[in-house]
Amino acid sequence: MNGPSTEVPIQFSDSAEALIEPSINELMRIPLEEPDILSLAAGFTDNDALPMALVRETVDRLLSDRQNKESLQYGTTPGRPDLRRLTCNFLNQKPSEQAGAFQPDQTLITNGSQQALYIAMQTLCDPGDYILVESPTYFVMLSLLQGLQINPIGMPANEAGEIDLPALDQQLEELRQAGKTKKLRAVYIMGYFANPSSRSIGLEEKTGLAEILKKHSLLLPVIEDAAYRDLAYAPVDDTPSILSIPEYADFPKLYTGTYTKPFASGLKVGFCVCSHREWLNKIVYSKGNQDFGTANFNQKIIEEILKSGEYGKLTIELGRHYQEKALRALSVLENSKIADKGWKWREPKGGLLMWLQAPIGINTDFGERFSKECKDRGVIYVPGAFCFASGEPHHFIRLSIGTLNNDLLKVALERFTEVAFTY
Amino acid sequence: MNGPSTEVPIQFSDSAEALIEPSINELMRIPLEEPDILSLAAGFTDNDALPMALVRETVDRLLSDRQNKESLQYGTTPGRPDLRRLTCNFLNQKPSEQAGAFQPDQTLITNGSQQALYIAMQTLCDPGDYILVESPTYFVMLSLLQGLQINPIGMPANEAGEIDLPALDQQLEELRQAGKTKKLRAVYIMGYFANPSSRSIGLEEKTGLAEILKKHSLLLPVIEDAAYRDLAYAPVDDTPSILSIPEYADFPKLYTGTYTKPFASGLKVGFCVCSHREWLNKIVYSKGNQDFGTANFNQKIIEEILKSGEYGKLTIELGRHYQEKALRALSVLENSKIADKGWKWREPKGGLLMWLQAPIGINTDFGERFSKECKDRGVIYVPGAFCFASGEPHHFIRLSIGTLNNDLLKVALERFTEVAFTY
Repeated sequence: MNGPSTEVPIQFSDSAEALIEPSINELMRIPLEEPDILSLAAGFTDNDALPMALVRETVDRLLSDRQNKESLQYGTTPGRPDLRRLTCNFLNQKPSEQAGAFQPDQTLITNGSQQALYIAMQTLCDPGDYILVESPTYFVMLSLLQGLQINPIGMPANEAGEIDLPALDQQLEELRQAGKTKKLRAVYIMGYFANPSSRSIGLEEKTGLAEILKKHSLLLPVIEDAAYRDLAYAPVDDTPSILSIPEYADFPKLYTGTYTKPFASGLKVGFCVCSHREWLNKIVYSKGNQDFGTANFNQKIIEEILKSGEYGKLTIELGRHYQEKALRALSVLENSKIADKGWKWREPKGGLLMWLQAPIGINTDFGERFSKECKDRGVIYVPGAFCFASGEPHHFIRLSIGTLNNDLLKVALERFTEVAFTY
Repeated sequence: MNGPSTEVPIQFSDSAEALIEPSINELMRIPLEEPDILSLAAGFTDNDALPMALVRETVDRLLSDRQNKESLQYGTTPGRPDLRRLTCNFLNQKPSEQAGAFQPDQTLITNGSQQALYIAMQTLCDPGDYILVESPTYFVMLSLLQGLQINPIGMPANEAGEIDLPALDQQLEELRQAGKTKKLRAVYIMGYFANPSSRSIGLEEKTGLAEILKKHSLLLPVIEDAAYRDLAYAPVDDTPSILSIPEYADFPKLYTGTYTKPFASGLKVGFCVCSHREWLNKIVYSKGNQDFGTANFNQKIIEEILKSGEYGKLTIELGRHYQEKALRALSVLENSKIADKGWKWREPKGGLLMWLQAPIGINTDFGERFSKECKDRGVIYVPGAFCFASGEPHHFIRLSIGTLNNDLLKVALERFTEVAFTY
């Protein structure tokens, strides 16, 4: 019995019509179906780096004390007050941030930062509206926007991968002339070790973005996604978030973060901090309707680990762990001499990803010849085109260094560079 | 620094305009602000019944074995295959269900069953559409519908609290004449120990509902919410779900359930089983956009507890626990003689709630004189009007027996009955 062979047709909602399977799913299924293929595509964290003992000990201590039985009880929609306070303390202590930039009563705990992004978009945009994103940007965000029938517009990037501010100025002027400005509802940026580029946005660039927006009288909600911020490599060169930069004072701001990537992705606890009371309220009410609040038990575990200081220590260790992986990956790329063939990349300063530029002429799309040769050789990657609002250009590649262990990572990268070198 | 005193106005989405604070929130804040007031309003489970040792031991065993490190890693959007299989096994083994009625490949793990209800509604209804609900129905569902701008229509109920089938027949005819039938998108029922009525829908009533819908050619998606099913009191008199009833064969069906209420509300793991492939796919894609899947760690904990058979044992114990509380509550009500004043109620056969009918003439709404007297006496409840699609009648009350311990429950009920008796 596998469901009826003929189904009564359902009249779905207009918004459901846009719900389609993300193209990335096909790619993600490959290693499950062909286990010999190594995936540099999946953006998982490293199983070997998961804090098994720390979670076990924390839960053991927590649940041995009857005082903590409430951790297995419902919480509230905004999330545990202590977790919100500790989250803000942790962020306010960063040397780059202004004291008090992160406020517990402006904070909502979410199911990963993904949920915060989804609800933020729901509250801001109707179908057909526009938002500005980086080029490249987080491809799951693009899929989320597609599902909500929101149109992303990629801001122009310069050769260094930065937002090209003069070109943005021009683009905003063109959008105004095309009558699209009034449907422009938000700006989405990834300030720290972005997915997929691993790039951070410098202070000058971030400030410049605010100034260009103000020049065009676009005091739009700005969303800064900081999912990878706590996975910085040494020496840490942290820049202030939009919550601490004076040029953003007049903008409605939402900062999203997570304990999923830097702690344990299986716990799925994220958060957002919103400078705008009315917007935050709408986000909280929507979350109330969707699930009344993130699992209280998971919140309590993170709360304990923040309180004990273990979280801060862990992020330093993880930064080292992934830095070592990044250095190994870089060394495979360098030894392969694919740079001589025109391949380019930058050394990541944090996060789980590397972003490669193929020589022009190589189309890296899924299903094209280059990706087929890689798959035949036993390795897959995320085609860069997935990460652009416009679906192009076609000569970038995202490699994940997070998931495979050191040995397999080396094998996977060698397979990849062999194809790239001989292609 | 508590946010700027003047905020830039944001142009919210049309759907965000409907996001308002649920009226129930004000009521739920009272015990936090006035700790002497006992709440018969909050629908929490009993802290003393939370399985602290079981969760502690399970996590300890899980995380002591490196094989299980993947439980701290990301999972997939549909949820763990073993948890889906064990969930279906557990349900298929109920004597009332047909073998194979619940299929793992039709199952999605969600953040409590609330999330399944939310996404189901999103996929089916546009703003302005209608759905049929019971009278009374789950008030958080009404709030969810309000947030999505969906209009609930209460099906008529008879004196016994059942769906009044002849009156429903008439109502559907009137809806057709009013041109509303084509905007009618779904039927939502709570088959087992419903919130707020504690009533279960008998087989004849459930079958009758299908027949009336078919008579009107309304092969609408039917959603059966079974959140309280596993909290049955002895002797258990379980009825088949819509997935096992032949009269529902042609309807698209969604069954929602949860491990939140009967296991640990702090873990927030629910599920849905959908008979309609296209609908299920849309629900899964939407969940993918919202959070890519429920916390894998929590799923693994539930999976272990199902596998060991502990879950089945626990629900029997919890059924006994809440049955004892219900019997204590009933005895307070009986001893108080409020029945002599015209108050009515039925003995619950499962769940965490009691549903009382006040004598006509008493308005139980929040802020009205009766509720003020209760609050002054130190007890609050959920006014029944919150639970009706139309917001009336005004002479019902929902009492939660789940949250307070035995001693406090007795005190709270005595306070309540004193007011009811002397009113």
